[in-house]
Amino acid sequence: MAAARIFSFPHALAGSPRFVLCPSNASFPNAALPQRRRSLSLRATLSTSAPSSSTPAEVVSKSSFKHCFTSGDDGFLYCEGLRVADVMEVVEKRPFYLYSKAQITRNVEAYKQALEGLDSIIGYAIKANNNLKILQHLRSLGCGAVLVSGNELRLALHGGFDPSKCIFNGNGKLLEDLVLAAEAGVFVNVDSEFDLENIVTASRLAGKKVRVLLRINPDVDPQVHPYVATGNKNSKFGIRNEKLQWFLDAVKSQPDELQLVGVHCHLGSTITKVDIFRDAAVLMVNFIDQIREQGFQIECLNIGGGLGIDYHHTGAVLPTPMDLINTVRELVISRNVRLIIEPGRSLIANTCCFVNRVTGVKTNGTKNFIVIDGSMAELIRPSLYGAYQHIELVSPPSPDAEVATFDVVGPVCESADFLGKDRELQTPAQGTGLVVHDAGAYCMSMASTYNLKMRPPEYWVDGNSVAKIRHGETFDDHIKFFDGL
Amino acid sequence: MAAARIFSFPHALAGSPRFVLCPSNASFPNAALPQRRRSLSLRATLSTSAPSSSTPAEVVSKSSFKHCFTSGDDGFLYCEGLRVADVMEVVEKRPFYLYSKAQITRNVEAYKQALEGLDSIIGYAIKANNNLKILQHLRSLGCGAVLVSGNELRLALHGGFDPSKCIFNGNGKLLEDLVLAAEAGVFVNVDSEFDLENIVTASRLAGKKVRVLLRINPDVDPQVHPYVATGNKNSKFGIRNEKLQWFLDAVKSQPDELQLVGVHCHLGSTITKVDIFRDAAVLMVNFIDQIREQGFQIECLNIGGGLGIDYHHTGAVLPTPMDLINTVRELVISRNVRLIIEPGRSLIANTCCFVNRVTGVKTNGTKNFIVIDGSMAELIRPSLYGAYQHIELVSPPSPDAEVATFDVVGPVCESADFLGKDRELQTPAQGTGLVVHDAGAYCMSMASTYNLKMRPPEYWVDGNSVAKIRHGETFDDHIKFFDGL
Repeated sequence: MAAARIFSFPHALAGSPRFVLCPSNASFPNAALPQRRRSLSLRATLSTSAPSSSTPAEVVSKSSFKHCFTSGDDGFLYCEGLRVADVMEVVEKRPFYLYSKAQITRNVEAYKQALEGLDSIIGYAIKANNNLKILQHLRSLGCGAVLVSGNELRLALHGGFDPSKCIFNGNGKLLEDLVLAAEAGVFVNVDSEFDLENIVTASRLAGKKVRVLLRINPDVDPQVHPYVATGNKNSKFGIRNEKLQWFLDAVKSQPDELQLVGVHCHLGSTITKVDIFRDAAVLMVNFIDQIREQGFQIECLNIGGGLGIDYHHTGAVLPTPMDLINTVRELVISRNVRLIIEPGRSLIANTCCFVNRVTGVKTNGTKNFIVIDGSMAELIRPSLYGAYQHIELVSPPSPDAEVATFDVVGPVCESADFLGKDRELQTPAQGTGLVVHDAGAYCMSMASTYNLKMRPPEYWVDGNSVAKIRHGETFDDHIKFFDGL
Repeated sequence: MAAARIFSFPHALAGSPRFVLCPSNASFPNAALPQRRRSLSLRATLSTSAPSSSTPAEVVSKSSFKHCFTSGDDGFLYCEGLRVADVMEVVEKRPFYLYSKAQITRNVEAYKQALEGLDSIIGYAIKANNNLKILQHLRSLGCGAVLVSGNELRLALHGGFDPSKCIFNGNGKLLEDLVLAAEAGVFVNVDSEFDLENIVTASRLAGKKVRVLLRINPDVDPQVHPYVATGNKNSKFGIRNEKLQWFLDAVKSQPDELQLVGVHCHLGSTITKVDIFRDAAVLMVNFIDQIREQGFQIECLNIGGGLGIDYHHTGAVLPTPMDLINTVRELVISRNVRLIIEPGRSLIANTCCFVNRVTGVKTNGTKNFIVIDGSMAELIRPSLYGAYQHIELVSPPSPDAEVATFDVVGPVCESADFLGKDRELQTPAQGTGLVVHDAGAYCMSMASTYNLKMRPPEYWVDGNSVAKIRHGETFDDHIKFFDGL
């Protein structure tokens, strides 16, 4: 519990205007929490004060999704059956990522249910989260893998993925990585003219024909942050439909090296309107029809990934995997193709919290700050994309804790280092646990060691126990980069 | 040279509209390059076609700074005496950072000359670049170190820095790290009320009095990107002057634990107008006067860092270390204090290029792209801050290379992955070297392994040779995070 209780300094702090307090009638969104009903059915808790409550069916039916990190009636935050505060006591005393293994399973099951009756591949996008233990779990549930680098391909093979369920994607694939892909027999998405050249070369070097899909850029606006929109006409990804014939001719001219088996598109990420998937699929099946007319045996339609999740925790009803697949189901059946989907975020983001400790609370000017031990080094999405991720304390507040509006910031020495802005929270004591929700995707996989904050360990809740699923990086790991130099 | 020459596919590519070409009368800033005179005096080149030209004195006197990566009359890019293209042939075939050791020395010498006659500490900000070999070189030149985490403190001690020239800084210092700081005897900047509490606790745990400076937030606008502005009134850093008396009283009440030796401010980063340093220093010496009146023995004025560099390579005359120190020299002398400065970027940024290979060139819609093997994973400043870093090819273009406007992008699967936008460049052949200039600061230290692009190796040019100064991270380094789990 770090500094919190070791040294008390009340005489000094009492005279200090530490933060601007909200008036007593300030709005406080969490005040209604004790009245909310929550499902605790999965809780076989280790804590001594475990709450228990039933889940009214109408709440479940109204909401498309139930978060696996929820507050109990005792005011503590739970991951499945375990208090996060209790987990913090048994793991390393540093920021860490905490997953629910059961939620990963549930997320995959939701896709599998949606895909029932369709020939399909769930290609998990490893770039979202490259934890080997998580990959092995996803593979055991039947997932394939979507790869965007040679190392991701190596990792998928290392993790036991079936190459015939793997797709190698990307706008800048290196020749040596394409050779590896050809040898392994994974699908390869063709992104550009030079990419096609390299795939042909790789096929020759590997002595194997490569099954390719054409990544077509459908120019459908995903209505998301420009940094995660990847299917509009000026994107660096894919090919434009006016070039389609050129690519078909090029593939035809290399019958020993290339087998064209499908088309691929990927609109972007954090998408919350599934209609656009249908819009894109309509365009894509038209391409399939055109391509088949030229004698190609098209087997696969790859509609990419990009389904958004409920980052805001406002209870909004977001589209489910079933909603997504329903928009394209009839089209897929009508063309008798295998549907490939490439979910990343929607499989893994909501299974995880980034868990921190409060180092202290301060105010400057009109701003209040909760300073935590985690930072933009471990989790850069808020800083890089202006992304909102919900923030919550893991323990009930002390009776006299005031509510105020805080920026939640880390210790990194720049103003970009924030995890959340303008959050209404109870003023936490030093050492209190604070989580950043929905941290399973594009968080750990983008972590740096800026300010020499070494990359954190990862754990998951598996039944009633907590297990480490990734070692934390250490200072010695940094020093070894200079061994013998 | 990777894919470039292994497989030729001219019959296909000839028919493909690969990029929109600029009209022949398009502006082309680099066209004038052959007429520019450059200093090559330090070149004892290993290449067989080394150019040689003299440096007119008037060019040197007009420009405040000479870039250490410059094009020779032969059209090749040189780092000191070596062709970057030649360096690429002898190092690992992957993106890498290349430094000029001589330029690091020159940058330190510029500060030392500026500080002549003043009692001073050059506290190199390790967060800018934490390469151990670079740190050891800076230490050998007399630098101290500015630290923002326990690991940076460990690294400085490991690198042999004199603790009496080290300053521990930051808004979220952990108690355990403050104990280490107290034991080592480094200066500690007090950032907030809770920070002061923790420093007192650390002093007691270490059994050593801590020499502290108060970080005062002067509310001077540095006129830079909000992410790197750190001294305005609503910043998360430092204390506001209306709280000064509270802090003075708190320090007085802990005579066994704390010795107040100075005041500190830090306005921000990438600052190009040194007047604001004077503005801040005027405020700070007034604080020194007030504090001395209360009986404190103030020895140090720490004005932080933040001097900008010539990222745009347009020949703009930017303030030098001499210009910076001249704005505060008389104030420092008048108060008889030791001046502490905390340069990071201005010591290390311009000593380095990030060296990449061109994977291919493509066009989509109205956009042309040069796709390289490096990415936002290795260098995130353009993506995170919208930062401009100059981009250049390392080899002269082929006679028929067309000039066009390109986005320079990496292979990472999102649209945030760009190194530069709208750059006029000769259309490069596959495999051509392409550098991102001024990559010594806040580039490698912020690198991630996103898309499993492992962190690159680093090299420096030292005299006539190239030496590795950091091992590249490998796939096995990723796998070991799961050993035994």
